[in-house]
Amino acid sequence: MNPPRSKCVIVANGMFPSHPLPLAALRAARRVVCCDGAAEKLAAAGFEPDWVVGDLDSLSDASRARYRDRLVAVPEQTSNDLAKAFRFCFEQGWHDVVIVGATGLREDHTLGNLAWLVDFAQALHALDSAHGGGRVVLLTDTGIFTPALASMEFRSHAGQQVSIFACEPGVQVYAEGLKYALEGVSFTRWWQATLNASLGEAFKLVFEGGPLLVFQTY
Amino acid sequence: MNPPRSKCVIVANGMFPSHPLPLAALRAARRVVCCDGAAEKLAAAGFEPDWVVGDLDSLSDASRARYRDRLVAVPEQTSNDLAKAFRFCFEQGWHDVVIVGATGLREDHTLGNLAWLVDFAQALHALDSAHGGGRVVLLTDTGIFTPALASMEFRSHAGQQVSIFACEPGVQVYAEGLKYALEGVSFTRWWQATLNASLGEAFKLVFEGGPLLVFQTY
Repeated sequence: MNPPRSKCVIVANGMFPSHPLPLAALRAARRVVCCDGAAEKLAAAGFEPDWVVGDLDSLSDASRARYRDRLVAVPEQTSNDLAKAFRFCFEQGWHDVVIVGATGLREDHTLGNLAWLVDFAQALHALDSAHGGGRVVLLTDTGIFTPALASMEFRSHAGQQVSIFACEPGVQVYAEGLKYALEGVSFTRWWQATLNASLGEAFKLVFEGGPLLVFQTY
Repeated sequence: MNPPRSKCVIVANGMFPSHPLPLAALRAARRVVCCDGAAEKLAAAGFEPDWVVGDLDSLSDASRARYRDRLVAVPEQTSNDLAKAFRFCFEQGWHDVVIVGATGLREDHTLGNLAWLVDFAQALHALDSAHGGGRVVLLTDTGIFTPALASMEFRSHAGQQVSIFACEPGVQVYAEGLKYALEGVSFTRWWQATLNASLGEAFKLVFEGGPLLVFQTY
């Protein structure tokens, strides 16, 4: 699988990536926006943040001084640092975003970040076509999460593991190109469409309602 | 925090625990039920499984031979190995269950396992009082997940980080004893009640509908 390339990569403050794909996305980025203390993990891995966004409560004094020309303090408490970083990118007009480092430590942060991903996709979807829309995906050390607001096709490869999560219960999903048939299955539980697999170079999910969160292993 | 002690600990096939609390729960267990290949991680950590349940497709031939007197093969494909292990415990009458090792590797497995936790709680709740009910919790390296089917009080400590996830949107939750007030907040997103904190030795969640999944750091 080729890593999704984007000019803008957000580094969240979970486990810093170790898999080659999120690292390649990071290396290829034209700008790197860090969530708060993630700047220190990034520096430890030999990268430099272009912006550091968030509460800034988890940055050391040394990092505050070092990055003083690129700090964006957003003190409000109703969203987390990943949401603040995304909003910053959104307002700058950076609408093609790859998120890394958003999982792997506290599981409640992982769940929260994955839920925010759907909100980010909805914000991008609301852009009018003059802005050219946008895209946001989240890369972990094991795979890629894509938020799906409407029926869509996914590039894939035979045997790729695929899990589908319905953010609201009752969404009916039809799938083409997956090993286990989804013929209008109505999800009432998150786990019901996990552990599927792709049969070839693409699969398609057709649904109304939603959104869905789709996970593909690398 | 004292680890929840249980006679029955299920070891799922995610990241083997490294935190002292899940390890203490494991050491105190009277019986340890492993999901498939988790038996090998368990053995590598110096423990012995009492039962190994699942597809058994991720066990080496050596492990198959070594544990041949304690294998429970459940080949069906509609539930995962954690659900199979829980059902085995449930049918044996082991209704006080602690799950460890269920997170930390593939994020879709993590999400699936957390969603199953609610189903396990519902199965235990359906037991009549003659069986004495039951309890199931999931310990990670960062905290404890408790499924809440109805309003309940949680033991806690001041400053403990608390995140609440509504498995279905629209649940209204009232909280006592948390830093950020929840006064009938109706959740429409998983992230909306994350990153709260306890004010003292207990907090209480009052809600109708549900279920909720409650995370507390250690």
